[in-house]
Amino acid sequence: MQKKVFFITSNPNKARECKNILSFFSIYVEIIKLQISEIQSDTLEEIARFSSLEAVRICKKPVLVEDSGLFINILNGFPGPYSSYIQNKIGNYGILKLMKGIKNRRAIFKSVIGFCSPKKLNQVFVGEVHGSISYEERGKEWAFDPIFIPDFSDKTYAQMSAEKKNEISHRRRALEKFAIWFNKEQNG
Amino acid sequence: MQKKVFFITSNPNKARECKNILSFFSIYVEIIKLQISEIQSDTLEEIARFSSLEAVRICKKPVLVEDSGLFINILNGFPGPYSSYIQNKIGNYGILKLMKGIKNRRAIFKSVIGFCSPKKLNQVFVGEVHGSISYEERGKEWAFDPIFIPDFSDKTYAQMSAEKKNEISHRRRALEKFAIWFNKEQNG
Repeated sequence: MQKKVFFITSNPNKARECKNILSFFSIYVEIIKLQISEIQSDTLEEIARFSSLEAVRICKKPVLVEDSGLFINILNGFPGPYSSYIQNKIGNYGILKLMKGIKNRRAIFKSVIGFCSPKKLNQVFVGEVHGSISYEERGKEWAFDPIFIPDFSDKTYAQMSAEKKNEISHRRRALEKFAIWFNKEQNG
Repeated sequence: MQKKVFFITSNPNKARECKNILSFFSIYVEIIKLQISEIQSDTLEEIARFSSLEAVRICKKPVLVEDSGLFINILNGFPGPYSSYIQNKIGNYGILKLMKGIKNRRAIFKSVIGFCSPKKLNQVFVGEVHGSISYEERGKEWAFDPIFIPDFSDKTYAQMSAEKKNEISHRRRALEKFAIWFNKEQNG
């Protein structure tokens, strides 16, 4: 049986990463470009759960949604669930300005995958990478990648190749948890 | 006929301001403490419209919701619709740090009132006050009030008495537009 899920996103970077990562687990991903109304919440888990329920209501297919955020300890978890909005508004420049003169640069990059089937089998899967905020932008890729250094590296996400990043990223960890669960469900 | 609306909020400051302001227009306000799921959006108008529809679905009464935000020009409208979350996370200290060394301190404080009746008569009303961001906190009241100076004053919102602020605030302007419309609807 072909294992297939529908990934709801309008972000081509996320789409590429997700397809790539789930292919290791023999799960075929079809992208549905759809703008879902996300709710406001302090937790990515709640946002992803709500979005997956909303997506299945519209698509009537087994759907995946993903939401991710950078949580900086000393800023009480800012930018957190509104990372994408805040990135668009103040950019890495703004984050680095807020972090100026601060020694505690600990941060967590978090990804939450929400899955929902038409029968309302609904699960969320969390992937985290602990690390720190760099003192300046390094590398060029999207969003916060140029300012996040995972603990097991001295490079920022943006300085890694796509392959390397997909091996270790927060999104990889969340998708991996999903994939293991999903393959078990399909075989069970 | 008694004119009555139900204001949905869990914020006692908003509740007080709203009751106070609408009493000038002989509109009686009853507070319903209810946490509505707000959607994520770049515009307060969309958030207020969605929340009012959601509130009427739950309460089945004529409801008001209010959402407000501070939009700083040079920061592309940050913190905008996520003002409350961002205020909790980085506070006025964070905003002032982001604005350090910046001369253009123009900002707009915006309030949007969403009204919806059980018959789905749905309207939004916008109130704006133009002003600037102060160089330091002045006064003690809530949220961004200690750092926002309206154009027609040299005091921050927080340095004004509640009466004075209610006479001129963005929330007053939005509620006033609502009240004029509502009184016309009731008499028409």
